[in-house]
Amino acid sequence: MESISVGLLGLGTVGSGVVQIIDEHQDKLMHQVGCKVSVKKILVRTLSKDRNIYLNGSRLTDDPSDILNDPSIDVIIEVMGGIEHTRNYILQALQNKKHVITANKDLMAVHGSELLQVALENKCDLFYEASVAGGIPILRSLVEGLASDRIKKMMGIVNGTTNYILTKMSQEGREYGEVLHEAQDLGYAEADPTSDVEGLDAARKIAILGTLGFSMKVDLDDVSVSGISNVSKEDLEYCHQLGYTMKLIGIADRTEDKVEISVQPTLVPHSHPLAAVHNEFNAVYVYGEAVGETMFYGPGAGKLPTATAVVSDLVEVAKNMRLGVNGNSVILPQYSKKIKSDEEIFAKYFLRIHAKDQPGTFAALTSVFSNHQVSLEKILQLPLDEGNLAEIIIVTHIVSKRNYDFIIQQLNDLDVVEQVKSSYRVEGDDNR
Amino acid sequence: MESISVGLLGLGTVGSGVVQIIDEHQDKLMHQVGCKVSVKKILVRTLSKDRNIYLNGSRLTDDPSDILNDPSIDVIIEVMGGIEHTRNYILQALQNKKHVITANKDLMAVHGSELLQVALENKCDLFYEASVAGGIPILRSLVEGLASDRIKKMMGIVNGTTNYILTKMSQEGREYGEVLHEAQDLGYAEADPTSDVEGLDAARKIAILGTLGFSMKVDLDDVSVSGISNVSKEDLEYCHQLGYTMKLIGIADRTEDKVEISVQPTLVPHSHPLAAVHNEFNAVYVYGEAVGETMFYGPGAGKLPTATAVVSDLVEVAKNMRLGVNGNSVILPQYSKKIKSDEEIFAKYFLRIHAKDQPGTFAALTSVFSNHQVSLEKILQLPLDEGNLAEIIIVTHIVSKRNYDFIIQQLNDLDVVEQVKSSYRVEGDDNR
Repeated sequence: MESISVGLLGLGTVGSGVVQIIDEHQDKLMHQVGCKVSVKKILVRTLSKDRNIYLNGSRLTDDPSDILNDPSIDVIIEVMGGIEHTRNYILQALQNKKHVITANKDLMAVHGSELLQVALENKCDLFYEASVAGGIPILRSLVEGLASDRIKKMMGIVNGTTNYILTKMSQEGREYGEVLHEAQDLGYAEADPTSDVEGLDAARKIAILGTLGFSMKVDLDDVSVSGISNVSKEDLEYCHQLGYTMKLIGIADRTEDKVEISVQPTLVPHSHPLAAVHNEFNAVYVYGEAVGETMFYGPGAGKLPTATAVVSDLVEVAKNMRLGVNGNSVILPQYSKKIKSDEEIFAKYFLRIHAKDQPGTFAALTSVFSNHQVSLEKILQLPLDEGNLAEIIIVTHIVSKRNYDFIIQQLNDLDVVEQVKSSYRVEGDDNR
Repeated sequence: MESISVGLLGLGTVGSGVVQIIDEHQDKLMHQVGCKVSVKKILVRTLSKDRNIYLNGSRLTDDPSDILNDPSIDVIIEVMGGIEHTRNYILQALQNKKHVITANKDLMAVHGSELLQVALENKCDLFYEASVAGGIPILRSLVEGLASDRIKKMMGIVNGTTNYILTKMSQEGREYGEVLHEAQDLGYAEADPTSDVEGLDAARKIAILGTLGFSMKVDLDDVSVSGISNVSKEDLEYCHQLGYTMKLIGIADRTEDKVEISVQPTLVPHSHPLAAVHNEFNAVYVYGEAVGETMFYGPGAGKLPTATAVVSDLVEVAKNMRLGVNGNSVILPQYSKKIKSDEEIFAKYFLRIHAKDQPGTFAALTSVFSNHQVSLEKILQLPLDEGNLAEIIIVTHIVSKRNYDFIIQQLNDLDVVEQVKSSYRVEGDDNR
């Protein structure tokens, strides 16, 4: 093997990072792979656009088939984004016996199983480390590093934008809207931030993690999702007072053969490893039956971190090519999918309630919990300036999601309750 | 391939964990490997000893050659410890074309290069993930997950005993000796704690990390080591006041083609990811040129965490056997060793000085620093109860180790200085 030729689909932020790393780290790549690695052709939308990138001989093209049908190209790296037409390009590449590396979480969350199956049939590699948590080698750690263990739970801070917003809100006592605008000005949040702040981006990543970690095909529709756009600075203040830090966490939890996959603002104790993950950083906490607690921390996005993950996948493809063993890394799911019902999902919850500041209020509230056999772990009551109201904060002990939904409904129906202002899941108190 | 037969050397804590995981996770192993995995023979010292372990058909032997020369055994797992005779067993296993997995950091730090070379010559695998940071898949992350990046710096909390002691001293305001005794009672520290508390155990691990991360053979003698036995609770209190947490950190730092490898009590800012690693947990912080900051966190020791790393290595050996590609994972060092001199090692330092509480003291102290062109970042002066003395805490800006050693000597020579009570390296202020 004299050299390995790459076809790159997309020359945006990550694409130009890939070109840069392959160029600048060529000596390390050659030492590991044993031959030269070069980007032969790059698919772009507009050939004439001015680009401030050193291309080192790569040729630009706006015709995908110029790359997908080039028999001299061994590996396709897909960093263009999009779902349906990108799926078609990748299918075509695999059918042409080209190995594929993608950073595309949207694609893998929706069409991952199909693409992996096609890769397997064509004896091709399909790697996607960069699709979850950018520069953190979390997929490889799950599949190889923890290969012998049975993963019980994963909790991921897998969206940098929301972690940045919650960190700033929490550390500086500011409101959501204000911090979001600042994040948009700084380029940490998109002009349309919906996918990030409503948890959809995180949902795709936790679906991929759940599928791999539990060896069970998890679909995006299986993920129950809520975002951070209703989080108030008061919520964060009371969390903090009670010893918790709020994070948007993707949770994948397995009990025997059933799993729960969800994304929601979640409170963890200040001493939990996830509580120390600040600003735009990502982290995936993995609890294995034998290994116990582990956590993988790093940059979740960005040009060079994401490109590092992509090119590390390329090193693996290249090593496999040298040994002639491509297409053996796909391990199809071992288990059929079983999703927990609301009766089978158990957690603690934090509630903030505005209630009338009068005799009997507390008895009425607590009877709703005791009627469902739920005991309370922490209680904080404070007078409110407005009206004749009290602010009541409660942290429950473990309760099923189904019972908890009943409790919320019944609390809102009480005469003494003005409103359940907010409610968040609590995790990590039992060191898991 | 109908099954893979393992010969286990040692049936202590980790050995019995390996037997347990292979037995209990057999379904996951078979799904990944494609055939049965079983422990055929186990080397023990005393055959007659009572053992409360389910051996699932494994046969005990006290004769190493009964395992090393058994042609039906494919893989040797070494969890017996020791250096010289263990080296001989492993050499014999490799010469008999058996793949080897070891959890032995002492052995790998001293004889790693030789053993890897022999493995390469015999086309055998030699994996040692468990030798550094127990259950954390850090070696695999360095070699594969960050394969495309150029590692600039690693900082590891790689000894659980000392991290436990420093955490308790810091959180509970207690003295070293008292906490050490408690740790010994709880089984977190050995009866002879020297190897842990003097940094020797950490030195072996950072030597292994340096060798792999920098692709340069680092010897144990290259590691400059100091431990925690002189750390006082006052040191920790002043660190905390100035915004730092103290950890025993193995540092491997590369500047261009030269490296520094050391172990010492080190201060990191409270906001640094390593500061949140408490109790007996380990973590390795890796700074890559492209990826930036990453950290890998988890249990550094223990029966099942360490056995998880061992059996995950076994999964990789088994996959390689299925594909017929064993012996290709060893990548010999790319660079020849170049160790930094004291002039080339730069850091900030924290000093605690007892000096006479009289006019001119501060001027005398600061002139020592300014004579070496070192500026001061933080200063704290407090009166001391004893004598006519002041407690002076200083954090310097960046200074070479050579200049810093001169400064310490000259400070101790000053008439106004009673003693430089303590001095620690400071890392992580520049977010690295």
